[in-house]
Amino acid sequence: MFTIQETDHKTSARAGKIRLPHGEVETPIFMPVGTMGTVKAVHHRDLTEQVGAQIILGNTYHLYLRPGMEVIQDAGGLHPFINWSKPMLTDSGGYQVYSLSQQRKIKEEGVKFRSHIDGSIHVFTPENVMDIQRTIGADIIMAFDECTPWPCEEGYARRSMHLTHRWLDRCIERFKSTEGLYGYEQVLAPIVQGSTYPHLRKQSAEFIASREMPINAIGGLSVGEPHEDMYAMTKLVCDILPKEKPRYLMGVGTPANILECISLGIDMFDCVMPTRNARHGLLYTSRGIVHIRNEKWKTCFEPIDPASTAETSRHHTLAYLRHLFIAGEPLGAMIASLQNLSFYLSLVRDARQHILEGTFAAWKEDILPMVSSKV
Amino acid sequence: MFTIQETDHKTSARAGKIRLPHGEVETPIFMPVGTMGTVKAVHHRDLTEQVGAQIILGNTYHLYLRPGMEVIQDAGGLHPFINWSKPMLTDSGGYQVYSLSQQRKIKEEGVKFRSHIDGSIHVFTPENVMDIQRTIGADIIMAFDECTPWPCEEGYARRSMHLTHRWLDRCIERFKSTEGLYGYEQVLAPIVQGSTYPHLRKQSAEFIASREMPINAIGGLSVGEPHEDMYAMTKLVCDILPKEKPRYLMGVGTPANILECISLGIDMFDCVMPTRNARHGLLYTSRGIVHIRNEKWKTCFEPIDPASTAETSRHHTLAYLRHLFIAGEPLGAMIASLQNLSFYLSLVRDARQHILEGTFAAWKEDILPMVSSKV
Repeated sequence: MFTIQETDHKTSARAGKIRLPHGEVETPIFMPVGTMGTVKAVHHRDLTEQVGAQIILGNTYHLYLRPGMEVIQDAGGLHPFINWSKPMLTDSGGYQVYSLSQQRKIKEEGVKFRSHIDGSIHVFTPENVMDIQRTIGADIIMAFDECTPWPCEEGYARRSMHLTHRWLDRCIERFKSTEGLYGYEQVLAPIVQGSTYPHLRKQSAEFIASREMPINAIGGLSVGEPHEDMYAMTKLVCDILPKEKPRYLMGVGTPANILECISLGIDMFDCVMPTRNARHGLLYTSRGIVHIRNEKWKTCFEPIDPASTAETSRHHTLAYLRHLFIAGEPLGAMIASLQNLSFYLSLVRDARQHILEGTFAAWKEDILPMVSSKV
Repeated sequence: MFTIQETDHKTSARAGKIRLPHGEVETPIFMPVGTMGTVKAVHHRDLTEQVGAQIILGNTYHLYLRPGMEVIQDAGGLHPFINWSKPMLTDSGGYQVYSLSQQRKIKEEGVKFRSHIDGSIHVFTPENVMDIQRTIGADIIMAFDECTPWPCEEGYARRSMHLTHRWLDRCIERFKSTEGLYGYEQVLAPIVQGSTYPHLRKQSAEFIASREMPINAIGGLSVGEPHEDMYAMTKLVCDILPKEKPRYLMGVGTPANILECISLGIDMFDCVMPTRNARHGLLYTSRGIVHIRNEKWKTCFEPIDPASTAETSRHHTLAYLRHLFIAGEPLGAMIASLQNLSFYLSLVRDARQHILEGTFAAWKEDILPMVSSKV
């Protein structure tokens, strides 16, 4: 399922391909987040043709509440429901249950929570989250875990990690005793937890690796901890997780985070940052970070990003985009979202190319200042 | 500038072509409204490729306030500022001054008003509105008029009409003593007023016709009066305005309004209805009007409109679009806007085709029930 095409000599970066039911994904890859079955403010066609997205992410918690499993099952899964024919991944719903629901109670059995929409009561268990993700039908589905906040006391982090491990075994059991509903095989990815405690991360990574699933994920990072901790935990875990399987770092991050973690051996990323920041007028461009509402762009009639794969960024000016944001026009977020997603996808595509050519380490150092600096 | 290709035998409908600096427009035509230099929630490329728009409208009042004339002049006009290469029309700002500004005082000289954005004080006169529209640089610019509300006392309607006529002569004088700023010639269209008083409308139409401008417009309709009054006034005015020049009915209207007024001899329309209704979840489709939030579409996995020129309407389902609206996702308004604009543009294109083929009257009667009925 995963073929490594090249491994960097100076770092742990690798370039590969993941074969999935809905197509092949070239790694390292960034997965745009399509929470409710739509990447916010982006047409599907533009997502493939302008951005070059190869796989998108859906959120189980949101889709379970709206439109609900009945509608998605009737539609034949999320792929036909939203008319997306490429690979898809769904998270387990855990992260949103902890961060969004109005109340939640975690027990051994699972999590009881109130919907953030209407206050209705629901229960997620490892078993029903597998069933829900069977119904959604993504190519890659995630184990039900507890994502600890940061900071987190060691005792809580340890107990939570063990709960995540016990839940994983229940997920695997349910997953193996069921099959895909729509004629193709899904893969289940377990998640390493352990907060920022090296010995817990080590223990969790060894446990996850022992389950021998085809893709392994790292959760519980990018939740507020210093970047150094994120990198240290990622490095520690990557060194334990099997080299021959894709490693997915959940919810990460800035362009610099992504470059650093590629060099540590991560193959897959997702994050709301490019789209959320786009809607707030923060652009990632080939010249650096642009705050588009800034007065300085008022009469700057240069293209938003002449190097972008998005034609809207090549054909529209910074001054026009600023005007759209100041005027509160929806086209502003639409153009900015295409810009930021194109930037992220170009970044991982460039990283991949440099890994294949053996020039990744030097290129990364070269490009790092640009991706984090403000224009 | 205007070539009539065919006139219907049973009605006063005509099919023609208007040659403008930025291209040719086939009539009858509907002009999507791009208030702030953007048709809300629609990418420019989709406006031409998916919708088939040939000319769009900008609003002088809004553009004057934001981004302001300095920015637009620096950009070389609205066309390059928004990267739109086809024809454009701007209104005179009058309508918005009366309806949006926080306070306004109408005098012989012009209108003093407070911005609805920051309360700042501005003055529009026939002269500076010509100058502003020179700066914006649309192919077709409109005379500065007073648009009377409905109902409107006869005395006020008469005095207002005469003011509009005196303003028109000032507009013409300023227009003729200036020229286009960007190397092409603009055309100025005067506006017939007179509320719903036949003798005033007759007087106004004769006055407007006497000024011998290349395009004539009818304002002050679709402001709340019964449809019968709108049709009666439009018919009366069309019979007076010269046949050999395009007639533009401002701010109209529903699909049925458009069909009726085409049959009365109108060549050009604009209205916020398709885009505004789209954002509220009301769709015009080839099967009739769809309220997309309705529960009945929850599991309707048929295309939004299989006959639409917009591929999003052919590839996405009613159930998915309903989900997007219920979830408050921007993609909902994006897809619905493309659907409604495509419907409007297809409607006038079909009307044109039937006029050319001599089958307009029968086709119109045939299609009228569909365009007004709810599915």
